[in-house]
Amino acid sequence: MTEVKFKRLALIGIGLIGSSIARSARQHSLADEIVCAARTADSRRVAKELGIVDEAYDSPIEAVKGADLVIFCTPLGTYGKLAEQLAPVLEKGVILTDVGSVKSAVIEAIGPHMPEGVDFIPGHPVAGTEKSGPAAGFAELFIDRWLILTPCGQSSDAAVEKLTAFWAAMGSKVEIMDAEHHDLVLAITSHIPHLIAYNIVGTADDLEDVTQSEVIKYSAGGFRDFTRIAASDPTMWRDVFLNNKEAVLEMLGRFTEDLTALQRAIRREDGETLFNIFSRTRAIRRQIIDAGQETPEPDFGRVHKSEETPKKS
Amino acid sequence: MTEVKFKRLALIGIGLIGSSIARSARQHSLADEIVCAARTADSRRVAKELGIVDEAYDSPIEAVKGADLVIFCTPLGTYGKLAEQLAPVLEKGVILTDVGSVKSAVIEAIGPHMPEGVDFIPGHPVAGTEKSGPAAGFAELFIDRWLILTPCGQSSDAAVEKLTAFWAAMGSKVEIMDAEHHDLVLAITSHIPHLIAYNIVGTADDLEDVTQSEVIKYSAGGFRDFTRIAASDPTMWRDVFLNNKEAVLEMLGRFTEDLTALQRAIRREDGETLFNIFSRTRAIRRQIIDAGQETPEPDFGRVHKSEETPKKS
Repeated sequence: MTEVKFKRLALIGIGLIGSSIARSARQHSLADEIVCAARTADSRRVAKELGIVDEAYDSPIEAVKGADLVIFCTPLGTYGKLAEQLAPVLEKGVILTDVGSVKSAVIEAIGPHMPEGVDFIPGHPVAGTEKSGPAAGFAELFIDRWLILTPCGQSSDAAVEKLTAFWAAMGSKVEIMDAEHHDLVLAITSHIPHLIAYNIVGTADDLEDVTQSEVIKYSAGGFRDFTRIAASDPTMWRDVFLNNKEAVLEMLGRFTEDLTALQRAIRREDGETLFNIFSRTRAIRRQIIDAGQETPEPDFGRVHKSEETPKKS
Repeated sequence: MTEVKFKRLALIGIGLIGSSIARSARQHSLADEIVCAARTADSRRVAKELGIVDEAYDSPIEAVKGADLVIFCTPLGTYGKLAEQLAPVLEKGVILTDVGSVKSAVIEAIGPHMPEGVDFIPGHPVAGTEKSGPAAGFAELFIDRWLILTPCGQSSDAAVEKLTAFWAAMGSKVEIMDAEHHDLVLAITSHIPHLIAYNIVGTADDLEDVTQSEVIKYSAGGFRDFTRIAASDPTMWRDVFLNNKEAVLEMLGRFTEDLTALQRAIRREDGETLFNIFSRTRAIRRQIIDAGQETPEPDFGRVHKSEETPKKS
């Protein structure tokens, strides 16, 4: 693995992802100095108190001064303005990347503002939890998770190699693909799952013939699984859907088409079709487990009452 | 809590739920003798080897002989024929119940066959994992989970009380409601979540512009959560949808209507509507956790790589 070390890592935004990068980069000595910019005084205070950054700035401009690695860790909707604001103060030779869940829109938002001498490499760690804020991060978040880079012709090979080494040192497996394909793949593996989770939780909340207390009591029948990703940050997810409209609508169309076929099978009491559809899905979970992307424990390893509650290290 | 003890508990079917009942009933000394009937020689062998039953029969008729508690733990579609077959050999005073996820159809399938002197009380433990078979069960499965009884006029109050005490002794919280309402509540908290999980896994599997290997690699973006319940037993779930058609179609109609509204908001780039929908869903998860129906751990408590792997007790 290539040795990698930055002088000054500037994280713009210090939520779940930003603070996990701070922790992991520190643990693996990937930067001499780690600083962040955060909009709220509370986030800056927490980041400082946790000792995960050396300095927490109000102003992104102050944070990127002297930085040789800048990572945007704020919601997608902020990227364009940030890029415009920071362009004049970015050092020659700096690598600028991001962690946004959409990539084509990020290239459009940031790319035009980037001056010569800045290596701009869009990135996306496919990792996270439903929690938000600087206290929610942890250094292990990226271990065995994929990190996708979508170079867009505004970076040198050497910079891509250096950024790859940075993520690999934090435990990620790095894949390079083009932005448009990224947005299609993530639409089905991440964006549509979030959309339908938000949707069913909303549907359940709106019923008049089933009370909210009943939804809560009997949620262990399956519903509670969906509430996890539906508890994710609303600003982040609003921006994902606003910035990956085409791919999301395309995949949503296919999902709905398939759901209509299932609905017809139920209406016609076509047990054979139902059985066939329900049978092929086990194999995929098995493969996800074998690929190290999921726990083999039943029920995600949820702890049952009479067992000892495990401590997170 | 009422003391409860049966002479002979006969479990018809010894999969995840049947074998969990066997384990828990044994642990809490709820029956002098615990037997099962199972269709496959393999299930009978495993159940015997695990020591969770005293006897494993091929024939349900042999299993129920002398039993004062009979529980149907097979897929719903088998109930009618089983009831017809067993009616002549059921002892006077026996309690006959089931664990099916639908209740109106169960009353129609079993009720007409039940002779005088049999207390028939439909039941449903809202608990489970995605695993199947006798080896997958565990005694703690029912702790703090709800058990719904839907008495249908074919049982005495004393029998309902005794069955309530049986489930309570295994850790369940018991609720009584009418079958029709049960089927509507479970349609939204369990059946629709399973249907859309099966559906999205199928959609992802069918794409031609995203490979299956990509779906697997990037599943940590949200998709993997859905594969858990989509790995549930296909026969059981086929029977659920065939037997709760009306309520499922009703709830599916509402889900689709809401999804169409979300789709329109994405198409129109209506960020405010998206943000509002995405904001209200966190509260529901919080309430489910507070009600003891979900773990407070982030990411369901999934274990991350550098942490110690916890052992299940």
